[in-house]
Amino acid sequence: MHAPTPPDWTREELEGRLRRPPFNAWLGLQLVDWNADGVTLGLDARPEIFGHPTVQAVHGGVLATLVDVACSFAVIVRTGESLFTVDMRVDYHRPATARAYRVVSQVVRVGKTLATSDARVMTTEGVLVASGRAVFQHFPHARS
Amino acid sequence: MHAPTPPDWTREELEGRLRRPPFNAWLGLQLVDWNADGVTLGLDARPEIFGHPTVQAVHGGVLATLVDVACSFAVIVRTGESLFTVDMRVDYHRPATARAYRVVSQVVRVGKTLATSDARVMTTEGVLVASGRAVFQHFPHARS
Amino acid sequence: MHAPTPPDWTREELEGRLRRPPFNAWLGLQLVDWNADGVTLGLDARPEIFGHPTVQAVHGGVLATLVDVACSFAVIVRTGESLFTVDMRVDYHRPATARAYRVVSQVVRVGKTLATSDARVMTTEGVLVASGRAVFQHFPHARS
Amino acid sequence: MHAPTPPDWTREELEGRLRRPPFNAWLGLQLVDWNADGVTLGLDARPEIFGHPTVQAVHGGVLATLVDVACSFAVIVRTGESLFTVDMRVDYHRPATARAYRVVSQVVRVGKTLATSDARVMTTEGVLVASGRAVFQHFPHARS
Repeated sequence: MHAPTPPDWTREELEGRLRRPPFNAWLGLQLVDWNADGVTLGLDARPEIFGHPTVQAVHGGVLATLVDVACSFAVIVRTGESLFTVDMRVDYHRPATARAYRVVSQVVRVGKTLATSDARVMTTEGVLVASGRAVFQHFPHARS
Repeated sequence: MHAPTPPDWTREELEGRLRRPPFNAWLGLQLVDWNADGVTLGLDARPEIFGHPTVQAVHGGVLATLVDVACSFAVIVRTGESLFTVDMRVDYHRPATARAYRVVSQVVRVGKTLATSDARVMTTEGVLVASGRAVFQHFPHARS
Repeated sequence: MHAPTPPDWTREELEGRLRRPPFNAWLGLQLVDWNADGVTLGLDARPEIFGHPTVQAVHGGVLATLVDVACSFAVIVRTGESLFTVDMRVDYHRPATARAYRVVSQVVRVGKTLATSDARVMTTEGVLVASGRAVFQHFPHARS
Repeated sequence: MHAPTPPDWTREELEGRLRRPPFNAWLGLQLVDWNADGVTLGLDARPEIFGHPTVQAVHGGVLATLVDVACSFAVIVRTGESLFTVDMRVDYHRPATARAYRVVSQVVRVGKTLATSDARVMTTEGVLVASGRAVFQHFPHARS
């Protein structure tokens, strides 16, 4: 069966796919919005994900996770396929001391076997905190 | 006061610094070994850090965290200073379906304000799962 | 003396700065346009810059040079300062077999000592060939 | 016909392959040494490849070219196959003001369709100037 084109996704399907990875569910990643070019995810800060006990800034590894997941979903909404991350780059622009975040991703290119997308992590006030890019191998497996 | 040179670190001091970030503590990062060139950290897999519920592979964001933390500690053992991650690259070489991991880091260069280090994430059998590099700004703050 | 704000640049000044590096001059980099957020540069293909004798595709190292130079000029038009490239990422999306290219750069963030910018290399028909990001240290030296 | 294993390469074959890309030939890249894990290439500085007319430092784009070519040859000596660079990261550690350089590459992993390798650019005195990593798609084409 063919992969669903973006309009085919229901919110329930995409939320299900977002929450299926146990670590995504533990983080509490929220699906805010999506279209054919990318997705917007949400994350609320909480003590367990801090990288510093007193500064209360979100850990760089958690911000990298936001880039990875948002970039992968930019490709998933487009192709519906299974992905394997080839590599990722993350740039840290400011300490992540806000209470809540939005990560917005955008497809750069989907080729025959590789796909590239970008993501920007911002506070809910729109201040850029981190950004990055990931490359994926995508495989024509059935959506489940 | 001058930053401590590597032989000055006691295991208790370094373990304290490794576990101080709440997310490191939640992950259960272990200090295996260290010298003037880098550190070896350990991580045991468990369901909450999986990126896939049935394949039981560790989430790419957690592997990125291992690269970030191990790279930062390669610089910390050398300088004792505070760090801010500038950027990071992570390459994913194989699915992370093992039960336990070692991440080994190594300083590439410590300059006046920037430092670069590499890390390799392996299973305890030595199979390379991921690797990467991070760049840090380092600041001459007192160790605490 | 203060660094010139973008409207202060004359085409002659920026072209002078673009052509001053001997390798830029040898490549024949052209200043197409610029504003406060970035620049557009041009490059014509010619046999000496090919990475393949028969396919006649521009060498990946030349495309990396386009990313480096365009990213640096996005920061230069904003700050007028001297730059040192800290690191760069380049993604190759399609073989570069066109006759002429445009590279468009955009500032991501200019901080106190570090600056980040993105660049996209396209054929003159707008087909994306390569893209990337660079991080720079910037120094308040006089423009000359 | 099967790709040649490393011992099969003669110096003439590898030098031919290194000099075939016109831009490599223009740079004057030299084959210093190779084995199953990587290659050592040489480059002499000259005014046309400078990034600064008075400092006489080699252009960052030329150093990126050294990383790209050395990384690709680490995979080529191993597989004998055709390559397409997927992406590359380059870190710049010191101004490249020496007269001659060595770039040493090393395979990180060769998978079924993707390969990863690292490279370090040093002065002939062994001072690290730049380093980086590239990922390639490799294709089982006949060596020619």
